[in-house]
Amino acid sequence: MSHVRYAIGVDLGGTTIKTGIVSSAGKIFAQSKFPTLGEQGPKAVIAQIRRSIDEVLVHAKGKKIGGIGIGSPGIVDEKGGVVKDPPNFADWHSVALGNAVKKIFKLNTRVENDANVAAIAEAKFGAGKRHPNFLFVIWGTGVGGGIILDGSIYRGPFGGAGEIGHVCVDYQGLQCNCGARGCVEAYIGQRYLSQRTVERLKSEPASLILNLVGGDVSKVEPKYISEAALKGDVLAREIFTEAGTLLGVALGSVLNTIDFRVVIIGGGISAAGGFVFDAVKKSVQSHVMKPMRDDITVLPAKLGNSAGILGAAGLVL
Amino acid sequence: MSHVRYAIGVDLGGTTIKTGIVSSAGKIFAQSKFPTLGEQGPKAVIAQIRRSIDEVLVHAKGKKIGGIGIGSPGIVDEKGGVVKDPPNFADWHSVALGNAVKKIFKLNTRVENDANVAAIAEAKFGAGKRHPNFLFVIWGTGVGGGIILDGSIYRGPFGGAGEIGHVCVDYQGLQCNCGARGCVEAYIGQRYLSQRTVERLKSEPASLILNLVGGDVSKVEPKYISEAALKGDVLAREIFTEAGTLLGVALGSVLNTIDFRVVIIGGGISAAGGFVFDAVKKSVQSHVMKPMRDDITVLPAKLGNSAGILGAAGLVL
Repeated sequence: MSHVRYAIGVDLGGTTIKTGIVSSAGKIFAQSKFPTLGEQGPKAVIAQIRRSIDEVLVHAKGKKIGGIGIGSPGIVDEKGGVVKDPPNFADWHSVALGNAVKKIFKLNTRVENDANVAAIAEAKFGAGKRHPNFLFVIWGTGVGGGIILDGSIYRGPFGGAGEIGHVCVDYQGLQCNCGARGCVEAYIGQRYLSQRTVERLKSEPASLILNLVGGDVSKVEPKYISEAALKGDVLAREIFTEAGTLLGVALGSVLNTIDFRVVIIGGGISAAGGFVFDAVKKSVQSHVMKPMRDDITVLPAKLGNSAGILGAAGLVL
Repeated sequence: MSHVRYAIGVDLGGTTIKTGIVSSAGKIFAQSKFPTLGEQGPKAVIAQIRRSIDEVLVHAKGKKIGGIGIGSPGIVDEKGGVVKDPPNFADWHSVALGNAVKKIFKLNTRVENDANVAAIAEAKFGAGKRHPNFLFVIWGTGVGGGIILDGSIYRGPFGGAGEIGHVCVDYQGLQCNCGARGCVEAYIGQRYLSQRTVERLKSEPASLILNLVGGDVSKVEPKYISEAALKGDVLAREIFTEAGTLLGVALGSVLNTIDFRVVIIGGGISAAGGFVFDAVKKSVQSHVMKPMRDDITVLPAKLGNSAGILGAAGLVL
């Protein structure tokens, strides 16, 4: 489909829909932003998607749009673009979102899971451009992932591949939301990271983190830990270094399984600074098989908030 | 290559070379067995492979042989059939084994890592015949694996995929031979399993295991633990149940990553009995993502000692 020069990318989020016209070179020409209205059910959401696309189409100015790509939370069945059980969407068990949007705009429409979409964005336009094989990690509220194999997304036989947040790092470890024990997400996901920080602030009241939240530990969250870390706060750096080390353990298990050498990390928490990437890399190196150790690359994602639109458009570009 | 009806399969082991003529239906027609002579260097080993093939060719009786497949320890580079650093082979850093054998017999020759070969055997002729996607585990001295994706072996970009023995189950855990900490192999590989059994026999001297080794704990090895377990010995069953549970933790991490649902387990220790498979399955189910839990299949491998010859022949059948 490389003859398609422009496509619409829809980043369907839990609270906001961001839509843009994207060129095959990865340039975003027009952009719109609408509330998702997920609490009002599938019809309302589809109507909002329609509006968001209509708005950018006004700016299409003779550009031939080759298709529509949508990145969505939940489990996505490629066939018909069926989206299953997206968290925080009301009355939404299983909806053929792709078919619905295709019917409205009469354009080739593809839907993909949001973590996979972000991975595709980095592969086509970002940090993964020169890497045909990489593991993409999105480290924020939770820990998600996508596997780019030979330049394409690896979905697995059931479309759910890349759940690296639920790789176990300690079989006797912390209870995870998913029901299992010791998932890496249960150690380094946003909520857990904040909890552990609050715990440790008790014995380290001089930490800058406490300053940044005005002494109110209920306000502790990764953005403050991150800010403190960037300013050199010892506790903040310790917390992120430990988190990066744990992420590296999980990544090591994955790399040993699929024999990849490149990891690209995006998501809010990854913005904490280079030392986090160093910690991840060192930990990965100490857990992968010997022949891989000198050949490990850990890179920050490049596309930030645009990854959703770019990767979604990338589905049809 | 499905027009090839007969092929030669060579199972190159650390001590023995087993070779056979195999039909495309998975029947072994003639078989030979020679010492590997790995301690004498590559030339000696290649000469032994030649002898083992010559011997089965005598029985070929007009069967048109379509090629030669070789399963080898070490890291295998498909191109040229280069075998790197096979353990316990003297003077063998990197040898183009495939090209050498091809030159002798003027037949299409392919070489593959032995764990992958066993996975291919199960896919073509064994427990994996009806499963286009499965994770193959070989549980013996160490813990190895192979990934069958869409009916073919997944080698990964560097040919080393499937090292599931080095999936971490405890980041603060036992030191593994590979240099990393907490690899599942460090808990359930043969040597570790025996060690832990010896430890526990101290407080459970009534165990049948002690009987089976004539009271000499230095003789404790999985085959005796397995024998005791099959006879209902409580300690033996506990040890294998714990080991199966740990294997399940590692497998859960892998299945979450690649979204597979089927695991096939071969190798010596897997012969301990059905209860081991039950323990593995239960543990996998408690570690995979919810939508996968009711859909997990854990099967014993079917081909036993013939897997090496069958899978090797399968490389060219």
